[in-house]
Amino acid sequence: MAVAVQIREAKEADCGEIMKMIRELAEFEKLSDQVKISEEVLKTDGFGENPFYHCLVAEIPPEHRDPLGQGIGSKIIKKVAEAALERGCSQLRLAVLDNNRSAIEFYKARGAKDLTVAEGWHFFHFDNEAVREMVRK
Amino acid sequence: MAVAVQIREAKEADCGEIMKMIRELAEFEKLSDQVKISEEVLKTDGFGENPFYHCLVAEIPPEHRDPLGQGIGSKIIKKVAEAALERGCSQLRLAVLDNNRSAIEFYKARGAKDLTVAEGWHFFHFDNEAVREMVRK
Repeated sequence: MAVAVQIREAKEADCGEIMKMIRELAEFEKLSDQVKISEEVLKTDGFGENPFYHCLVAEIPPEHRDPLGQGIGSKIIKKVAEAALERGCSQLRLAVLDNNRSAIEFYKARGAKDLTVAEGWHFFHFDNEAVREMVRK
Repeated sequence: MAVAVQIREAKEADCGEIMKMIRELAEFEKLSDQVKISEEVLKTDGFGENPFYHCLVAEIPPEHRDPLGQGIGSKIIKKVAEAALERGCSQLRLAVLDNNRSAIEFYKARGAKDLTVAEGWHFFHFDNEAVREMVRK
């Protein structure tokens, strides 16, 4: 049975639910200790002037609470692609964990290329302590 | 001899020189075919309302045109770290080519961690054609 999933831009009031999904994803990735953000910061960063991020959410009717198999991923990534073109972006970039096979297959089926494998790009980060240390020096 | 390198925010008029450096970096990385951007787009994206990027430039006195060995990298990355803290960023992220050993050593010496090696993050992208194809579907 087709379900009316609605994809829309996130509102400030969605930040509680978004924070919950960030925690669930981190748990799935076994990286819960890296979640430093809070609902408050999500609100400040996404809904002030010059927001740091934009976010889409999928709304599912309450009688269909199992989100799997309803094509939500396809609908969301299509909206993301539309938003990218509207803003003049020339490409879309993502970071994916190499053991998240279903995500990798999902992206590859839509034409994504693994630039770490194809060209050797590595993802580096300075954590907060390293950033502060560079400023102190 | 110490040289007075000045690090400052880029101005719109710097875009020609910035474009030249983007081309030189791409050549060094053997990825020149991936440079799709133009000076005009650099100006639009960086110097309108809600700019897509911010940029620092290093000014070297004309009598010292050899940029190597003057600590410019250290000065720039310190400024980037300061800008990150001022804006409330919790970390700094970078993509680095695995054969760019000098860049990797430079970042690691300042506390950066290779998340591709440590956690398995891969860098994916959809090129412009793939983005358009997702919108068409």
